[in-house]
Amino acid sequence: MESIDQLCVNTLRILSLDQIQRANSGHPGMPLGAAPMAFVLWDKILKHNPKNPKWFNRDRFILSAGHGSALLYSLLHLYGYDLPLEELKKFRQLGSKTPGHPEYGLTPGVEATTGPLGQGFGMGVGMAIAEKFLSNYFNREDLNIVDHYTYAIVSDGDLMEGISSEAAALAGRLKLGKLIYLYDDNHITIEGDTSLAWNEDIELRFKAHGWHVITVSDGNDLDAIYGAIKAAQDEKERPSLIKIRTHIGYGSPKVDTPDVHGAPLSEEEAKETKRFFGFPEDQSFYIPEEAKKHFIESGSRGVKFEEEWNKKLEKYRKKYPDLADEFERFISGELPENWDLDLPVYKDTGKKIATRSASGETLNKLADKIPNLIGGSADLAPSNKVVLKGKGDFDSNNPTGRNIHFGIREHAMGAAVNGMALHGGILPFCATFFVFTNYMRPSIRMAALMNIHSIFVFTHDSIGVGEDGPTHQPVEQLMSFRVMPNITVIRPADANETVEAWKIAISRKKPVMLVLTRQNVPVLDIDKYPIREGVKRGAYIISDVENPDIILIGTGSEVHPALKAKEILENRGIRVRVISMPSWELFKEQDEAYKKEIIPDHIHKIVIEAGVPTGWKDIVGDNSTIIGIDRFGESAPGDELMREFGFTPENIVEKAIAVLQKT
Amino acid sequence: MESIDQLCVNTLRILSLDQIQRANSGHPGMPLGAAPMAFVLWDKILKHNPKNPKWFNRDRFILSAGHGSALLYSLLHLYGYDLPLEELKKFRQLGSKTPGHPEYGLTPGVEATTGPLGQGFGMGVGMAIAEKFLSNYFNREDLNIVDHYTYAIVSDGDLMEGISSEAAALAGRLKLGKLIYLYDDNHITIEGDTSLAWNEDIELRFKAHGWHVITVSDGNDLDAIYGAIKAAQDEKERPSLIKIRTHIGYGSPKVDTPDVHGAPLSEEEAKETKRFFGFPEDQSFYIPEEAKKHFIESGSRGVKFEEEWNKKLEKYRKKYPDLADEFERFISGELPENWDLDLPVYKDTGKKIATRSASGETLNKLADKIPNLIGGSADLAPSNKVVLKGKGDFDSNNPTGRNIHFGIREHAMGAAVNGMALHGGILPFCATFFVFTNYMRPSIRMAALMNIHSIFVFTHDSIGVGEDGPTHQPVEQLMSFRVMPNITVIRPADANETVEAWKIAISRKKPVMLVLTRQNVPVLDIDKYPIREGVKRGAYIISDVENPDIILIGTGSEVHPALKAKEILENRGIRVRVISMPSWELFKEQDEAYKKEIIPDHIHKIVIEAGVPTGWKDIVGDNSTIIGIDRFGESAPGDELMREFGFTPENIVEKAIAVLQKT
Repeated sequence: MESIDQLCVNTLRILSLDQIQRANSGHPGMPLGAAPMAFVLWDKILKHNPKNPKWFNRDRFILSAGHGSALLYSLLHLYGYDLPLEELKKFRQLGSKTPGHPEYGLTPGVEATTGPLGQGFGMGVGMAIAEKFLSNYFNREDLNIVDHYTYAIVSDGDLMEGISSEAAALAGRLKLGKLIYLYDDNHITIEGDTSLAWNEDIELRFKAHGWHVITVSDGNDLDAIYGAIKAAQDEKERPSLIKIRTHIGYGSPKVDTPDVHGAPLSEEEAKETKRFFGFPEDQSFYIPEEAKKHFIESGSRGVKFEEEWNKKLEKYRKKYPDLADEFERFISGELPENWDLDLPVYKDTGKKIATRSASGETLNKLADKIPNLIGGSADLAPSNKVVLKGKGDFDSNNPTGRNIHFGIREHAMGAAVNGMALHGGILPFCATFFVFTNYMRPSIRMAALMNIHSIFVFTHDSIGVGEDGPTHQPVEQLMSFRVMPNITVIRPADANETVEAWKIAISRKKPVMLVLTRQNVPVLDIDKYPIREGVKRGAYIISDVENPDIILIGTGSEVHPALKAKEILENRGIRVRVISMPSWELFKEQDEAYKKEIIPDHIHKIVIEAGVPTGWKDIVGDNSTIIGIDRFGESAPGDELMREFGFTPENIVEKAIAVLQKT
Repeated sequence: MESIDQLCVNTLRILSLDQIQRANSGHPGMPLGAAPMAFVLWDKILKHNPKNPKWFNRDRFILSAGHGSALLYSLLHLYGYDLPLEELKKFRQLGSKTPGHPEYGLTPGVEATTGPLGQGFGMGVGMAIAEKFLSNYFNREDLNIVDHYTYAIVSDGDLMEGISSEAAALAGRLKLGKLIYLYDDNHITIEGDTSLAWNEDIELRFKAHGWHVITVSDGNDLDAIYGAIKAAQDEKERPSLIKIRTHIGYGSPKVDTPDVHGAPLSEEEAKETKRFFGFPEDQSFYIPEEAKKHFIESGSRGVKFEEEWNKKLEKYRKKYPDLADEFERFISGELPENWDLDLPVYKDTGKKIATRSASGETLNKLADKIPNLIGGSADLAPSNKVVLKGKGDFDSNNPTGRNIHFGIREHAMGAAVNGMALHGGILPFCATFFVFTNYMRPSIRMAALMNIHSIFVFTHDSIGVGEDGPTHQPVEQLMSFRVMPNITVIRPADANETVEAWKIAISRKKPVMLVLTRQNVPVLDIDKYPIREGVKRGAYIISDVENPDIILIGTGSEVHPALKAKEILENRGIRVRVISMPSWELFKEQDEAYKKEIIPDHIHKIVIEAGVPTGWKDIVGDNSTIIGIDRFGESAPGDELMREFGFTPENIVEKAIAVLQKT
């Protein structure tokens, strides 16, 4: 490399440092140490277009070590993304585009929100899955319209987190050869030398995961880094980990110490660092002219990359007009026409159907219409009913297969699905038991934080699970997601509500979670009940009466005992309204008039839900009774448990009468 | 091995199968395949005493593959634990001692609740840590009063879960040579052959984790299994993984298929299986007499093991009476006298103190008094303020060190702490940022489910975190744990409340979670406010007035703006009561009179808490206003955020006046 390259590296370092010093907050160690690998990757390798950060065929880059955000902002600014220097000066300030950790959707060029360790590692795997699927779906002969790499810079923290083992094993199994991670091996964590807690042989471990491992012994050696990335590109089958020995806080007096990880330098230390790199010590946000010029020129090549690709796409369109149309539709995120026709309609024949089963049938109908709907389960596909029949397994031998075997790796699954959603061009879903959402909660939170279209299918939704017992019975999960911002949780009551729930999951373009029964439940007569309009509103009157004495509100499988309780109560002359409430979030979006109309203050409400009751008073107020579960479950047949815990028409009736007698 | 051994193995198989067939629910595949390794371990190796399952120096055994519970119940019954055959006949039924997955505290001899994959793997690591600490603390010359192994049977699911990578890396780093795991390598998961999702080189991976790996190619070869366990015992430094090739559902017509994993066999298949093993096909719960005799004799050796140990302990007591006393106290779980004297008392000098800092000071004082209080952080010890000063690092070179460097592995940390608590003899704690509880939620749930004394210290408890932004700012976490049964969550308002919170955490003998500020907060005058009694009650009047017009309820750092708002309001002639409410769970334990006295229905309440508001209406009812956060945070200095989100005296005053004007 040339001396201009070194100047550019140091410019990245000092510009990052200046952001942190100005904010008096941030992580200087990583940018000082890892700037060389970031520079080589962005300058010599990465095909991206700063003028169009959404150019579809760009290489993806994730800063999995999100605490190094200042470095990413330096890169984005210098290469010409729409991130003015003024924003860098507002690093970590309210309303800026330069928050403490990179945030997707806020800053142009940020491909994923990162910071919680290992998430970036996992999302990259999802992006590479998306690329593999789409490239094999669309590319023809010499016309590779989808053909890019996914890169990330990962840290020791990423690699210690279990999610990285899961995600690496998945990537190795799927032979994601176009996934290339640069490991910033700086030997330092917050508590001290990494060896305090960590003596894994990382090369051996990643070989065991099925990866190609390259080592660069000097993280300042730009040529060596370049050579390593090129060698990683040459490896077509295995994902590559490039282990690059760096020095945290390089150039500062705190080099190789934990102190430089997460706190700004003192004024004097910052000056000393600037002197070390030959930068004027009294200037802030100083960008040498030659460096500026180099960055801009380098970044401007992106326009050419995209133009070349546009030409290719033009040729492709002429030769394969239908495929080209489909490609455009995929990347636009639009759904094919009539995607929601031919979905199942369930008649009340007396036969009970588990909502997971109705979900499986609906999903399969949807998959027939929506060819980029792909996903899978963490080894529970047959139980979760998410097998896409006749759609093949996604595999290196069959990369247009649409069933992904994520393995018993819920956490990596969640991150991968987020990565797929972020990549674009596909509509991803994943599945497991509802109780095991705990294992992937950090990834679900990332979906919520980024507000992206990840679809989560969770079955075995309550003590109705039965014999597997309390380890497998969610009780607190439902409420724990209702308190998570941005996630739409839908717990349908029957097969028909499940169909509607899926329509919302597909069309909402935000994270949606379906919560489904293991056990069979009655089918609600679609001709009798206003299910289609009702589910959309989150809650609706499923069975009404004039001047009700009491209102029963059920969710999911508990709508059925509520309806039965109504029958019993009405035989006793008590007028009952029954409400099915599959989704709090959808209900909260309704106007106040609707809310007050169906759930008025002056009538007593009884809520029936096989979950922790805390939270319901927000919906129904004091004039209410909640039949819920405030402890862990038990191991026994599910219907026995439902009785034991009071989810029976009889118990509802008893509660209703007690309330009415009081008033 | 002899033919009686083979008969015993088959007895385990058939007795397990019979439980599942009777229940018409369960997992026959694992017991049929893994009975030989379980038999060899329990019969030839394990030092335990069925007549006293709590004998302290017993070898610990965890069935990490908890779905094989029927096998564990067979072992417990046959070796003479207090688990009658009648209980096995009630497998998976309401009220039985044989639930779907093993449950700690319910069934004698069950060392840990398992089922959620990887948890058992992680808890075993904690047990081995406890053994290492205690053995080095107490053992003298030839008098090894703590000297046992920790064994587990683990499955492919355990090994795919990220937690097992974390826990294995931790165990390897800590050189837990007395940890021996038998891996039931049956090549089958629910979705099919393990290779569908998994092609890791497990030997290589565990070598990378720092483990000793032994392979047994035939899981029915009892001698080979025995030899492998002996070889594992001979390895003193590295933990051992014994990879044993088995066949799921061995002996049944469904051998080597996913169908035999999680569903009972048909009647005919069960008969065929019994014929295969030479058992009478028309009998259920048949135990051959010779086998019965063998099991009982083998189990009865346990009495001798314990007697020998008691003799050793007697000698030890004579030679080291003080240490023996301490040992008894450690294993009894009792606290030393005066453990809670000399704790810090904070004066209101105007200097603000973060509750994490007060926690650190308190913890250090406690650690001086309580020598078996040990723990650490997931690489955030300096930030979490959990460094035990002068207590050394727990390490193979210093196994009585009390600071555990868990590494950036929250999930394994949680499981390890649970394992330590289960082992007994020590009082363990762990720490990370509150938002990263998501990463360890499955382990926290296990602590809750088992209701064990794991102490969780979580700092950086709100948007007060500041610049690190929404990825690092908990908003939904507080409520998400309030809805989890059995966990006591305490969010103290200041340094003095923090001291009280620690006293509860130490003495409660149940899982307790401390939720602490990053930012400095004022100190509440301990002479002025009834903090000591108040915290115990979960909520208390911190500042009262006769006939209040309004009640302000704050938790944690939000108590301070509430107190300031009171001053402003009282200047305007409005009478204000202020309540500090550090813990919902403690408050809910109070009698109704107290609850109604401090939070009466007829006075309007304003709750101020920097978290999701959903749930509060359960505490304060309709006659209330909640100042909370119903979206994710932002990146900015913490005090700015607190203003931006409305946690200011001014906003509270405004809300209060608006309410009072309405009424």
